[in-house]
Amino acid sequence: MSYFRANIERMTGYKPGEQPPAGAKVIKLNTNENPYPPSPEAVRALREVLPESLRRYPDPFAGQACRAIGRVFGFPQEWIIAGNGSDEILSMVFRACAEPGRPVVYPFPTYVLYRTLAEIQDAPVVEVPFDDDYNLPLEKLIAARGAITLVASPNSPSGNTFPAAFLDELASQTQGIVVIDEAYADFARENALDLVRKRENVLVLRTLSKGYSLAGLRFGFGIARPGIIEALMKVKDSYNIDAAVIAVAAAAIEDQAHKNGNAEKVIRSRAVLAEDLSRLGFRVWPSQSNFILVRPPAGDAERLYLGLKSEGILVRWFDQESLRDKLRISVGTDEQNNILVRNLSRLLKA
Amino acid sequence: MSYFRANIERMTGYKPGEQPPAGAKVIKLNTNENPYPPSPEAVRALREVLPESLRRYPDPFAGQACRAIGRVFGFPQEWIIAGNGSDEILSMVFRACAEPGRPVVYPFPTYVLYRTLAEIQDAPVVEVPFDDDYNLPLEKLIAARGAITLVASPNSPSGNTFPAAFLDELASQTQGIVVIDEAYADFARENALDLVRKRENVLVLRTLSKGYSLAGLRFGFGIARPGIIEALMKVKDSYNIDAAVIAVAAAAIEDQAHKNGNAEKVIRSRAVLAEDLSRLGFRVWPSQSNFILVRPPAGDAERLYLGLKSEGILVRWFDQESLRDKLRISVGTDEQNNILVRNLSRLLKA
Repeated sequence: MSYFRANIERMTGYKPGEQPPAGAKVIKLNTNENPYPPSPEAVRALREVLPESLRRYPDPFAGQACRAIGRVFGFPQEWIIAGNGSDEILSMVFRACAEPGRPVVYPFPTYVLYRTLAEIQDAPVVEVPFDDDYNLPLEKLIAARGAITLVASPNSPSGNTFPAAFLDELASQTQGIVVIDEAYADFARENALDLVRKRENVLVLRTLSKGYSLAGLRFGFGIARPGIIEALMKVKDSYNIDAAVIAVAAAAIEDQAHKNGNAEKVIRSRAVLAEDLSRLGFRVWPSQSNFILVRPPAGDAERLYLGLKSEGILVRWFDQESLRDKLRISVGTDEQNNILVRNLSRLLKA
Repeated sequence: MSYFRANIERMTGYKPGEQPPAGAKVIKLNTNENPYPPSPEAVRALREVLPESLRRYPDPFAGQACRAIGRVFGFPQEWIIAGNGSDEILSMVFRACAEPGRPVVYPFPTYVLYRTLAEIQDAPVVEVPFDDDYNLPLEKLIAARGAITLVASPNSPSGNTFPAAFLDELASQTQGIVVIDEAYADFARENALDLVRKRENVLVLRTLSKGYSLAGLRFGFGIARPGIIEALMKVKDSYNIDAAVIAVAAAAIEDQAHKNGNAEKVIRSRAVLAEDLSRLGFRVWPSQSNFILVRPPAGDAERLYLGLKSEGILVRWFDQESLRDKLRISVGTDEQNNILVRNLSRLLKA
C-alpha cells in the first residue's frame, strides 16, 4: 500500500510563480502584485496588534474583517466567509463539492490552481477552450454540467471580464455552484456582486492580494447565500485566519479610498504600457486587470522571458498550450514599465 | 443534485471551544492557551514587519521559519513543512492519504478534529477506545490497518504521553502513515522526534499555539522524511503562511529559553492545581500537558461547567461518551487556578 491516495501520487502539484528572496534586485512583474504600498491604516493596525491577541486563539469567523466587508459591500455577515487568501476558499469549495462523478468545469486557459484542486479531489475536469479573443464559451460550459463551474473575471492570463448577462445566464442554466473568481475585480469596470443577490448558486471571491497590496498577508473572502457559506464553514480549518491578519484586513477594507487611488494609477499605467507594447508590434489583449497578456511579433515569448530574466526583470511565461507564444506582464510603476519596454525593444532587435 | 458532496451534507463540522470576544472579563481555561505572553523577540519581529513584505507574496515554503526549526530540532529543511497551525498540516495529511477504503485510525477520546477531517474525506474511521487509564490500545490500533493512524501525545483530553517504545512498535507494525500529534509536547518529559529519524512512516506535528503562547498567530510544523513532506506539499495551499507569521514564528522558535521558562511555570502550577483538586475529591488523571482531566466526586461535570461559566470561568466539558462526567481544565496562572478551585469548592457544596 502506498502512503498516499493514487490521485495524489499521480499529480505534480501547483507551482507558484517565482518569488525571488526579499532584497533581491529585480523588477517583479510576474505574479500580479500591486506596485504601490498597502493602506497606512492597514500598516498601523499591524503595528497595534497586542501580544495578548497573539496569545489567545483568534475569532474563528474573523468577525471584525467580515463586518467591514459587510459594511463596504452591503451584505449581511452570514453571507460572507473569510479565507487565508482566496486560494483557501477555492480549496474549501472543492473539498465541499468536488469528487469522482462531480465534474469541475471552467474555460481554459485560466488560473492553473483550479486543475490542481480538482486533482486533489480526484474529480473529473472539463476544460472548455476559449477562442482566440477569450470570449466566454457559454454553451459548452453549461453543457458540461459542473458540480463546480469556475469563471475568473477578470480572467488570468487574458485580463478580460465577461458580460454580467453571460454570467447570469451561466448561473441560471447551471445546477451546481458557480464560482466567479474576482481576484482582479478592483481594476475592472464591472463585477458580479449583484449576481450573488439574484442567483442562489453563485459564490463571488475577492482577495486583498492585488487591489489592496496585501499579497504577503493572505486574506480573501467569499460572498454567497448563507446555505453555501454554512457548507464551506464545515470544511474550513477552525482558526484559519490569524489575529493580526483579521485586524489588518479590516483596516484595509475600510480604506477603500487608498485601494481605489492605487487602482486608478495602475489603470492609467496599463493603458500606457499597452500602447507602448502595441507600438513595438506586440498583440495586446484588452485588459480589465493589473496585468496584460501580449504576443510578441515573432511569437518567441520564451526567448523574451529568458532575456528579461537575465536582466533581472521577471514576467510570466506559461509553458502551456495556447500560451507558449505569449507573455503575461504585471503592470508596474511607470518607471518599471519603461525599463521593461526598453529591454523588450532591445531584445526584439537582438 | 445537491450543491455539496453527500458526506459534507451529512456532517456537522468541528465546533471549536468557546472564544469570548476580546476584552471580555473571563478566566479562560477551556482551549489550552498558555497563560503567559509570547517571547518579546516574537513581538518585536511583528513590529518590524515592513509594508514591502506585506505587498509581495510570501515565501511559499516559509523558509525563514523552517530554517529556525531545523537548527533548533536538528533536521534538514526538506524534512520540515510549515502549516497555518498544525490543524492545517492535519488537513493536508487527510487530503493526501484518506478516502473511501483508506481507514483513519486513532484511540478515543482524543482531538475531535480527526473525525471531522475523516468525514470531509469520506474515509472510514476506526476509533479504538482507551481504557479508563488512557493506556495506548496498541494491538487494536495495529489491527485496524490505518492508512492514517493518529496518536496525540500528550493526548487531549487525558493529558498523558505514551511510551516511546509503544509508538515505535505502532510505527513498525503499521503500513500507513503514523501521525504523532505533539501539540502539547512542550509541557512533557518525552517526545517522539527520534522516531522520525528511525521510522520512515512517522510524521510528528508541533504547534506554536500552546508552548510558545502564539495561538492567535497560527503556525504549526511537521517533521518527517522528505518523501512524506513532498506529498504534503502537493496538497498545500501555495502561500499558506503569511509574511508576518513567518518572521514571528522564526523569532519565537529561536527563543527556546522563553518558551521553556513559561513551560516550567505551567508545570509547577499544574502540580499545585492537581493537588488542590484531589483534595476536593476530584479524580485527577496524571498530565504531561498544560491541562488536566478531572472527574468531580459526584460525576456532575456539566453542572460544574455551567456553574463556573456563570461566574465567568470557562473550562471544557465534552458532551461525549466517556467524557460527560469529566472536565478538561487548562492550567492558568496560580491566581486563576486559585479562583477556579475556590469556585469549584463552593459549587461542590451547593
